[in-house]
Amino acid sequence: MAKGFPSRAEDYSQWYNEIVSRADLAEHSAVRGCMVIKPYGFSIWEKMQAQLDKMFKETGHTNAYFPLFVPKSLFEAEEKNAEGFAKECAVVTHYRLKTDEDNPGKLKVDENAKLEEELVVRPTSEAIIWKTYKNWIQSYRDLPILVNQWANVVRWEMRTRLFLRTAEFLWQEGHTAHATKDEAVEETRMILDIYAKFAEEFMAMPVVKGLKSESEKFAGAEETYCIEALMQDGKALQAGTSHFLGQNFAKAFDVKFTSQEGKQEYVWASSWGVSTRLMGALIMTHSDDNGLVLPPKLAPYQVAMVPIYKGDEQRERVVSELQKIKEILEARGIRVKLDDRDTHKPGWKFAEYEFKGVPVRLAMGMRDIENGTIEVARRDTLEKKSFDLSDIGNKIEHMLENIQENLYNKAVDFREENTHIVDSYDEFKKVLEEKGGFIYAHWDGTAETEEKIQQETKATIRCIPFGKPEAGKCMVSGNPSARRVVFAKAY
Amino acid sequence: MAKGFPSRAEDYSQWYNEIVSRADLAEHSAVRGCMVIKPYGFSIWEKMQAQLDKMFKETGHTNAYFPLFVPKSLFEAEEKNAEGFAKECAVVTHYRLKTDEDNPGKLKVDENAKLEEELVVRPTSEAIIWKTYKNWIQSYRDLPILVNQWANVVRWEMRTRLFLRTAEFLWQEGHTAHATKDEAVEETRMILDIYAKFAEEFMAMPVVKGLKSESEKFAGAEETYCIEALMQDGKALQAGTSHFLGQNFAKAFDVKFTSQEGKQEYVWASSWGVSTRLMGALIMTHSDDNGLVLPPKLAPYQVAMVPIYKGDEQRERVVSELQKIKEILEARGIRVKLDDRDTHKPGWKFAEYEFKGVPVRLAMGMRDIENGTIEVARRDTLEKKSFDLSDIGNKIEHMLENIQENLYNKAVDFREENTHIVDSYDEFKKVLEEKGGFIYAHWDGTAETEEKIQQETKATIRCIPFGKPEAGKCMVSGNPSARRVVFAKAY
Repeated sequence: MAKGFPSRAEDYSQWYNEIVSRADLAEHSAVRGCMVIKPYGFSIWEKMQAQLDKMFKETGHTNAYFPLFVPKSLFEAEEKNAEGFAKECAVVTHYRLKTDEDNPGKLKVDENAKLEEELVVRPTSEAIIWKTYKNWIQSYRDLPILVNQWANVVRWEMRTRLFLRTAEFLWQEGHTAHATKDEAVEETRMILDIYAKFAEEFMAMPVVKGLKSESEKFAGAEETYCIEALMQDGKALQAGTSHFLGQNFAKAFDVKFTSQEGKQEYVWASSWGVSTRLMGALIMTHSDDNGLVLPPKLAPYQVAMVPIYKGDEQRERVVSELQKIKEILEARGIRVKLDDRDTHKPGWKFAEYEFKGVPVRLAMGMRDIENGTIEVARRDTLEKKSFDLSDIGNKIEHMLENIQENLYNKAVDFREENTHIVDSYDEFKKVLEEKGGFIYAHWDGTAETEEKIQQETKATIRCIPFGKPEAGKCMVSGNPSARRVVFAKAY
Repeated sequence: MAKGFPSRAEDYSQWYNEIVSRADLAEHSAVRGCMVIKPYGFSIWEKMQAQLDKMFKETGHTNAYFPLFVPKSLFEAEEKNAEGFAKECAVVTHYRLKTDEDNPGKLKVDENAKLEEELVVRPTSEAIIWKTYKNWIQSYRDLPILVNQWANVVRWEMRTRLFLRTAEFLWQEGHTAHATKDEAVEETRMILDIYAKFAEEFMAMPVVKGLKSESEKFAGAEETYCIEALMQDGKALQAGTSHFLGQNFAKAFDVKFTSQEGKQEYVWASSWGVSTRLMGALIMTHSDDNGLVLPPKLAPYQVAMVPIYKGDEQRERVVSELQKIKEILEARGIRVKLDDRDTHKPGWKFAEYEFKGVPVRLAMGMRDIENGTIEVARRDTLEKKSFDLSDIGNKIEHMLENIQENLYNKAVDFREENTHIVDSYDEFKKVLEEKGGFIYAHWDGTAETEEKIQQETKATIRCIPFGKPEAGKCMVSGNPSARRVVFAKAY
């Protein structure tokens, strides 16, 4: 175990912070609430981006780019959306600095360069995008518009945590326009499926799909769909949301189209996004008391190679053998790092790659060369074995697939063990207190009951899950309930 | 020729604007000086990004992400840099909006949410990055740091033009840290070579490599290297810059390292960037009086297919034949769009793909099917030919290579024709007035002469080109000059 590194049981929150910091994923910056995403962390995010981008494009979406700033008058247009984000907006009021005569070498805001209208740094882009779509849409022939944007957004947060909640974060935001309600709803649901598939197949993170309650939905949406994942401390994390916006933004920005029947109608909309928050979800789903654990599909390098030697002659020999194996692996598309640095000892390297979550570590020394073997260590199970070199490419490829699968299965098992069905409010509070996790319980569908539960227990409705309804009675009010909903404490 | 579309000779500036707008590349937004990059334009930028990113990674660089905001006190630290950008900084002063009681439904800045320290929206990231590097660098073992960032930046501009000069633009900015001056200079030059290679091999745009004069160099740099391209109106466009920063930022942020000899030394630095401005350069290098012309390597689709038919039966037959050819082309990695929409006529489609600069257009009708042929039109030469279908994949692949080459050669020829060597100031003024282009002339190396020339003629020194020096006398002062420099009017 890394020195001074707390176990999850000791201090979960500190355990998370230490992983983010020591595995070189991200750090706090000199700007309050904003993070620096370090190269190792960023290369995981790049893999997420590449895969999601591929999935969006395969389903007909294209990327575009809209301004960072939203003039206040546009921001206000959709009132619920504006109200929802007003309290966390960074606002640009001036466009120039000037020399501060009282402080040589210092600058101050030039009061003569005050903007006539303030600019909000986008917390989300519906307003600026719907203002733009107004000019793009005249007829049904211009629909659908299926556009995505990769961008930074800013939501001023008082309490921040790296990746999970930061004032500036990176995300993608899809914004689509449709001729019919059905088509927009279908898009919203299809994107949710993409998010769930990405979470499960690439992040190896099982998710529950469902609908947000009225109180939890996106400001300006008719319906918000979400995927919810369970972290190892029993808290839920909202990993992605897809919103059916109805005609709210079309009405706010007067976006109409001529239908095939020649009528003027308002356009239907969806918007959807996932962010660098997924990095936090990835870390907390798989990592253990030895550090970060990465699923092979998103690992910057899937295999780290460490040569064991004494002196230059042995070094050359071992490195050259490893180089050959590296080429074999790379020919299969495996990402390999051969660490032949002479400035660090093998033990240091072992600890480094273990802490950084590299799925497979290979080590080779003179004895291995004589025997035609190589030492193979798996990060997920920490198993170490000696492998015969024959067919090594195939073996490692299978091991990586197996690790990906194993991580997913472990996460599914964890979630099942921590999913509880309760029928009374007392039981609910007891389970929440003692075990945490996802709690399926009946709720009468009112905001009052939802709020009461939240205030008394800090648990929120994570989602109204898809699937068969099951009638019952609300655990709090005793009123009828059409289905169980998922409660949890959440990030 | 597209309706109402001016020729270059008629109105070059309007010609450019119309191409950007009608080819769906970008448009002005509701935010002063900020643009919307539309899907077709953005997909060209994505191709540029992907290629540059590959080249950076092949040379050992990794991506990371640093905050959008720079606290004023950090921004001030490197005085020349701060002075250079102070006049064009968007400044965030508040972090909350609130309900405007006097205007129902409207919001206003909450004066109680004033930041203690203003935040500058990054016009460039040296300050925030060097503040971060201070914590990353202790010893020579931590060097070099070779990091790049893809990001948006804001420089408040009073007169904006789509892609060429906008308040917000997208770019990449590399920021490297080195133990020695030589290594930092080598990095600066190596990146310039990458930029030149990218411009020539991918954008098919020849460039002159050189050094900026003292007055034109980046604020905070010791030396700025650049690539300069010549547009069709005889004006130069700076397409990329790579700065040797010396120890300026290391000193401003106190970034020292312990050398191999155990001494404390300041770190050496480079920074370098290209931006969405390259889109403007690409458009102006190749496009003609019929619209946009794209080099195949950066075209969103390289081949557009248009079926010619009467009635559903013919349509099905022709589309199915084209589908087969599409698969043949795609198997070779060619990007193909088969436009089988029934809502638009072939003539409309021909005009559309011509205006959007698609390198090759294929058209097929029943007669072609009978003859085993296809109509092939090249965008660069506007030639139209009937091709036998045998070996069609190979033929189209070669045609695309040929178009890429031809566009480059045409641009080289244009530049040669518009490059002039002059020896007197009178001749200089005459050539500048009558012909424009790159003018190679002797200059005495002083800022005074440089400024005099600029004020009298509007021409600037684009660069002090690499290559053999040639002694002579300054065309203005008559003082000795070590080499000719490149003058031009510029974007």
